[in-house]
Amino acid sequence: MNYKLVVEYDGTRYNGWQRLGSTSNTIQGKIEEVLGKMTGKPVELIGSGRTDAGVHALGQVANFHTTAISTPGQVLEYLNKYLPEDIVIKSVEAVDDRFHSRYKALSKQYHYRIWNHPVPTALWRKFSYHYPEALNLEQMREGAALLMGTHDFKGFSTGKSNKSTVRTITDISLSVNGEILELSFEGDGFLYNMVRIITGTLLEIGSGHMKPGQINKVFETGDRTLAGPTVPPQGLYLVRVDYK
Amino acid sequence: MNYKLVVEYDGTRYNGWQRLGSTSNTIQGKIEEVLGKMTGKPVELIGSGRTDAGVHALGQVANFHTTAISTPGQVLEYLNKYLPEDIVIKSVEAVDDRFHSRYKALSKQYHYRIWNHPVPTALWRKFSYHYPEALNLEQMREGAALLMGTHDFKGFSTGKSNKSTVRTITDISLSVNGEILELSFEGDGFLYNMVRIITGTLLEIGSGHMKPGQINKVFETGDRTLAGPTVPPQGLYLVRVDYK
Repeated sequence: MNYKLVVEYDGTRYNGWQRLGSTSNTIQGKIEEVLGKMTGKPVELIGSGRTDAGVHALGQVANFHTTAISTPGQVLEYLNKYLPEDIVIKSVEAVDDRFHSRYKALSKQYHYRIWNHPVPTALWRKFSYHYPEALNLEQMREGAALLMGTHDFKGFSTGKSNKSTVRTITDISLSVNGEILELSFEGDGFLYNMVRIITGTLLEIGSGHMKPGQINKVFETGDRTLAGPTVPPQGLYLVRVDYK
Repeated sequence: MNYKLVVEYDGTRYNGWQRLGSTSNTIQGKIEEVLGKMTGKPVELIGSGRTDAGVHALGQVANFHTTAISTPGQVLEYLNKYLPEDIVIKSVEAVDDRFHSRYKALSKQYHYRIWNHPVPTALWRKFSYHYPEALNLEQMREGAALLMGTHDFKGFSTGKSNKSTVRTITDISLSVNGEILELSFEGDGFLYNMVRIITGTLLEIGSGHMKPGQINKVFETGDRTLAGPTVPPQGLYLVRVDYK
């Protein structure tokens, strides 16, 4: 059987999604541990992608193969019974054997939440980034428009790889709810730190420290130092992963 | 000088608002400690009312008298610099000497947040109460209508006191946002555990375990055992305290 899981987690106390060794405190590691107990065998859980320490997920997707004969409902119940309460399995589904949560992912959605007020927030401090300066949303939307489409996002990432850094962002939208400014990103894939660097760049633009046109310079040169800073992890949420 | 503070806090790791002794871990105690450091003298902070362990506040109000000559802006800056990050002072204002945050309060607003979905929430588990059963909002609104107005709320509280238990609720409203059902309460004052018992009663009504008319029986008898359970603290927020 090949089971697909949709996972919600509060990333605050974890070293991110990806298991890095037997002692690391990761979300993948925690779920594999419970699955191993359930099936009596080591299980490898394949995530749609890694998330960093402190980053949250509303809809991370992962899959695993097993010869055990538990039903999806039983797997859901067992996992939610034994997982810590900051990791919740939202659904379990039996899928085609060829389904692979990373290779088959067509698009992803991320949110980044900014607490935009001079006074910080006590309640949402682990779920948003405090940015005290006033923001010009018009300017930020102008910048967002330049980022959409297919581009080489090399300058908006920190990974060192020989693989292609060309990606397509299909949508960036900004919405305001009280003191919270939420940026929503949708695209076919995102490079390491890409959402956090793009958000940092849009905040530089919104606060008047950078012109929207700077984005084209980053595209032309691929120079990371020309883009804005990498904003911290606690404002970032992996919202959804889409498949065919 | 008499200074009025508006305070936001994440109540998760505190034994509530009220200082109970020198070793207790309370919000009042934390703020008094920093004020004492600032003024060089012990300071007594008067809150609009206590909140229990785990209860949050978006707009608790408190005041203190001091002979120190710091401006409101300096007090705000000093407190937010030295308080833990789960307590934030939103504003400081110099007020009339006769202002008293408890005696002069005219009305208060509370919110209670319910995560109404079969699967619990990982992200908002410390900021909402998980109630998995389906809810009939019509029935809940019918119950809410019976609760509004001036009544003896003895059966909806757990305090033992000879003082009057008559209170006026000026508004109860229900709003749904995704999986979150938020109940909003406004009134001239609330007895000990009153918001949590009323919420527990409305949930019994919404899930069909109780009829709205049960509320009148609780009013008639003053019998706590006829009302619903006391729901847990982490869904409760003190939102606002109003003065003349």
